[in-house]
Amino acid sequence: MEFYGAVEAGGTKIVAAVGRAGEEPRALERIPTTDPGETLDRIIGFFRARASEGLPIRALGVGCFGPVDLDPASPRWGFITSTPKLKWQGTDVAGTLGRALGVPVGFDTDVNAAALAEYRLGAAIGRDPAVYLTVGTGIGGGAVVDGRILHGASHPEMGHMLMARREDDGFPGFCPFHGSCWEGLASGPAIEARWGRRGEDLPPDHPAWDLEAWYLAQGVLNLLMALSPRAVILGGGISQVPGLIDRVRSTAASLCAAYLDRPQTPEEWSDMIRAPGLKIPGLDGAFLLAEEAAGVSVS
Amino acid sequence: MEFYGAVEAGGTKIVAAVGRAGEEPRALERIPTTDPGETLDRIIGFFRARASEGLPIRALGVGCFGPVDLDPASPRWGFITSTPKLKWQGTDVAGTLGRALGVPVGFDTDVNAAALAEYRLGAAIGRDPAVYLTVGTGIGGGAVVDGRILHGASHPEMGHMLMARREDDGFPGFCPFHGSCWEGLASGPAIEARWGRRGEDLPPDHPAWDLEAWYLAQGVLNLLMALSPRAVILGGGISQVPGLIDRVRSTAASLCAAYLDRPQTPEEWSDMIRAPGLKIPGLDGAFLLAEEAAGVSVS
Repeated sequence: MEFYGAVEAGGTKIVAAVGRAGEEPRALERIPTTDPGETLDRIIGFFRARASEGLPIRALGVGCFGPVDLDPASPRWGFITSTPKLKWQGTDVAGTLGRALGVPVGFDTDVNAAALAEYRLGAAIGRDPAVYLTVGTGIGGGAVVDGRILHGASHPEMGHMLMARREDDGFPGFCPFHGSCWEGLASGPAIEARWGRRGEDLPPDHPAWDLEAWYLAQGVLNLLMALSPRAVILGGGISQVPGLIDRVRSTAASLCAAYLDRPQTPEEWSDMIRAPGLKIPGLDGAFLLAEEAAGVSVS
Repeated sequence: MEFYGAVEAGGTKIVAAVGRAGEEPRALERIPTTDPGETLDRIIGFFRARASEGLPIRALGVGCFGPVDLDPASPRWGFITSTPKLKWQGTDVAGTLGRALGVPVGFDTDVNAAALAEYRLGAAIGRDPAVYLTVGTGIGGGAVVDGRILHGASHPEMGHMLMARREDDGFPGFCPFHGSCWEGLASGPAIEARWGRRGEDLPPDHPAWDLEAWYLAQGVLNLLMALSPRAVILGGGISQVPGLIDRVRSTAASLCAAYLDRPQTPEEWSDMIRAPGLKIPGLDGAFLLAEEAAGVSVS
């Protein structure tokens, strides 16, 4: 049996694993996202150590925080581009890992990989178009349309849509590019900057969560208006706060004001806005990208 | 040579024509959008009169203002649903026309039809994904992804994305569903309600146009973030105000703050945000829908 390598590279930590999509990984390691040289060295070291233990990989898939260059014709394909994490700007992630490990590399954003995995293996099976969102250190989103990851001039940057501020919210937003975009108003760091405490230290009845649900609902609603998906998966640490997804559903229904034919009823809203079906969707997505890079059909 | 029927049904007027996609129509009539019975009768009368003159149609394509039901499995496929134009709610547009004329009917939204036409024949050839927007009586948008019109749970309703209000704009928005959504802040009726004059009566140096460009730029930017298109076509009467598209380009670049890899330069923004390439894109799109309904491949 052949195995693949998968890397889910997030803004604060990286998960590297050997295995196959949709199966329990044979080996897995969590690596903090520090500076690029050190972090990539640790990833390479992990795969080399597993190979020496009898777990070589046929190909590697990387789902990476962005923005990244996904244009196959670009000399900077596989690079991180204008990220606010300045040390990572211009890092050749795909090339560095592929050359060091001597395997083909499939590369996409972490959220695009997660969207593909939730569509193929998770909570969005049969739901086309499907949108996957992660709400944590930042807000990111990817989509699957007609069974394929949505790419275009670059890749979606759903967390950087500009947003209406709720009237009682005086927080200016913290995005260094856009101030009060979705990520600037509703990511984990926005919650901490607005309330002076980390989200995990705020009780469930704190008004922070009503406001958070309002911003998440607004963004989800705008994606329904832009893309007409059949499922929106709310992933990432913040989304899993108990009760939050239910509040997002009811607030989105309220903001929508019954304008859309579907969803209309509370059941349809629950069906549309869903929790992830996979434990680490970005990792399963990276395995799928590895299989594609190896030329293995995964449709 | 066989001909097709095309109907572009907008909120204030309807264009009906006999001909073929991408060619000058053999016959064309403009019909005001009044109440459904009278309006549909006039459309039927137009095609019957042309048939009696030797221009029968093999199939009919309809690009219709919305929202409409596009689910082929729905008993209300081809109906207008929850439109603010209350007299038209629940009108069976596709069925009424198809039964009266005895031909197959292809049916979609007016903006989806226009998006398809601009992608196949107009200013978005080779640009996939492509977005088409119309800014006039309302704001509507459609997209082509992987060569096909983007459909999902329903169809995109881009004009109903919620928007950040510019700080100096006290106008509350007029959308009966959402107040200050894109359409509620930046369509023709919004301009008239905010400034007390119709857009066509406002001089080019009136501050209305700077504000209008700001709202159009915000919406276009959010669509770039959501969909990563390779072209956004700005159609409709308001968009054609001299100089407005240039202002939208520069304002969108400013709001984007160089976050996206592409577009970055003024030339790339001009290439991304484009004027329509067709005179009546919704009508060409309706001809394409008719050809599809007749089983003629148009790929």
